[in-house]
Amino acid sequence: MGKDKISGDLGGGGQLSYDFVKEIILPAFNNPYLDRLDDGAVFDINGVRLAFSTDTFVADPIFFPGGSIGDLAVNGTVNDISMCGAKPLYISAGLIIEEGFPENDLKIILKDMAESADRANVKIVTGDTKVVPRGAVDKIFINSSGIGVVSENITVSCSNAKPGDKIILSGTIGDHGIAMLTQREAMEFETEIKSDTASLCGMVENILSFGRDIHVLRDPTRGGVGTVLNEIALMSGAGIFFYEEKIPVKKEVAGICEILGLDPLYIANEGKLIAVAAPDAASDILKSIRNDPLGCDAAIIGEVVSDFSGQVIMETGIGGKRIVDMLQGEQLPRIC
Amino acid sequence: MGKDKISGDLGGGGQLSYDFVKEIILPAFNNPYLDRLDDGAVFDINGVRLAFSTDTFVADPIFFPGGSIGDLAVNGTVNDISMCGAKPLYISAGLIIEEGFPENDLKIILKDMAESADRANVKIVTGDTKVVPRGAVDKIFINSSGIGVVSENITVSCSNAKPGDKIILSGTIGDHGIAMLTQREAMEFETEIKSDTASLCGMVENILSFGRDIHVLRDPTRGGVGTVLNEIALMSGAGIFFYEEKIPVKKEVAGICEILGLDPLYIANEGKLIAVAAPDAASDILKSIRNDPLGCDAAIIGEVVSDFSGQVIMETGIGGKRIVDMLQGEQLPRIC
Repeated sequence: MGKDKISGDLGGGGQLSYDFVKEIILPAFNNPYLDRLDDGAVFDINGVRLAFSTDTFVADPIFFPGGSIGDLAVNGTVNDISMCGAKPLYISAGLIIEEGFPENDLKIILKDMAESADRANVKIVTGDTKVVPRGAVDKIFINSSGIGVVSENITVSCSNAKPGDKIILSGTIGDHGIAMLTQREAMEFETEIKSDTASLCGMVENILSFGRDIHVLRDPTRGGVGTVLNEIALMSGAGIFFYEEKIPVKKEVAGICEILGLDPLYIANEGKLIAVAAPDAASDILKSIRNDPLGCDAAIIGEVVSDFSGQVIMETGIGGKRIVDMLQGEQLPRIC
Repeated sequence: MGKDKISGDLGGGGQLSYDFVKEIILPAFNNPYLDRLDDGAVFDINGVRLAFSTDTFVADPIFFPGGSIGDLAVNGTVNDISMCGAKPLYISAGLIIEEGFPENDLKIILKDMAESADRANVKIVTGDTKVVPRGAVDKIFINSSGIGVVSENITVSCSNAKPGDKIILSGTIGDHGIAMLTQREAMEFETEIKSDTASLCGMVENILSFGRDIHVLRDPTRGGVGTVLNEIALMSGAGIFFYEEKIPVKKEVAGICEILGLDPLYIANEGKLIAVAAPDAASDILKSIRNDPLGCDAAIIGEVVSDFSGQVIMETGIGGKRIVDMLQGEQLPRIC
């Protein structure tokens, strides 16, 4: 790091976030659960394997096409637990509210949280509310943490990708980030792009029926698909090769990215996952994902290779190859 | 409520917080775990009884005599889990940091978290960091959630106080709130009052050896002893009678409260607990608490009565009786 002030770029979920966590957070707490850098921790209590995850949502705006900060808070934590290979069960809600926040907006957000929890079949069982003076927080921030149960035959981890594995992406990328951006900047486009915020626990339940053939599950939120693929390559000590033309992107999202000079590979998603699976099982897993309404655009986008350890290589639409790095700096602040 | 803006008083932990949770939060999520209004939820996963709790810390100042927001975050959640009658095991850390926050201050806070976790013998196993633009949050807020395991023979709940039970307070009250206040207002007093921030899990482990004789455990944080006693009376449908002269208060704390017109009964504590116990076991439990260095000032302060259901009555130093309500409004904002 070398700087003495926390930079806004650290919150982007890309290279700087990764370095910050590796250099500042992990040494402070120094334990193998955190060191794995998965979306949550998996541990055993009296013979029961549990997954535990936390996420804080600081999204701006708090209401956007396709959802609200309430949906994000529940779906985000449900998904983080799912990405541990777990079935999410119980969720907490930690609210930080700015004095003067409209009570009706709070009620809508709580309703969104309750409905998202119902859809994911999880219960919001414990909570905390802090109200802080005007100016001490911007509107409302929500932390949600959650607990899930992991079956015995599941060994999903970011460090578990093996050469030959196929990489499956569950749908179009960039929808959430672009929906937030167009709202925030009050841009006028002909079609309204909606956030993809959704809980993936149903899709994951089906995927997990493939047991040990599932090696990695990650949801590409902050930092996008490009950053998550890099994290998998680094943590697994393997290379990742994928094809640009296989990546599903909505035409409108691609168009806005082109206008604004953004790369959809680094835009946040809130209802998509990347699964890394044993080659023999990959096409059946793809079918299972496509059977889910949230996965109808799923595709096998590439594979894990033994060359290029720790690197991500993309074959471009015209057949060239380029290294895809983690997101550098922050593309869009307060995206989730 | 009836108002359409969230009032700062809702964050005080007193009557308005209680009404807000009862009228806005509980109906939104509608489940028996939350309805119990305990410090956390207790549930069973595949035969293992777990406690799960969350708390967000927005303390101002972030460093104060006796600790920091980092200590508060770990001790607070460790204590909330302990108050469920559980042994705390795993903790999460959700950081929200203002852009430009000094990196050295962050390192001190993380070190305080790690050391508090070591003292409580819990592991910080999962986390999340958000960095938000200047002005979107004041310095740093920390959410911590946690998981503990509950023994089969423990049935601790806020609604479990029974007429005849004795009420034990583990030590002097008001230390944390007054330490924060004197820091914040840069008051000059001859003696420096330190926050009592500490993890009570060791003390609770000893208390829990008394099994079903322990009926209620609560830590009187926001809202203080006066509010927590009211919550126990309301949730248990019993009355609570206590003696003002039995309440341990440090001379300096009492003095500052008198000068400022504050009632120590409503000042936040961060290292004290109230135990409600079967009468036959109470004196042994008191002994066990006093054997702990954090409990050397512990006292039996009163008892649960069948009259005055839902009310708290105090016999004053000169023998009069008065009703002690929950804290009305907010005495000190951002105390934890």
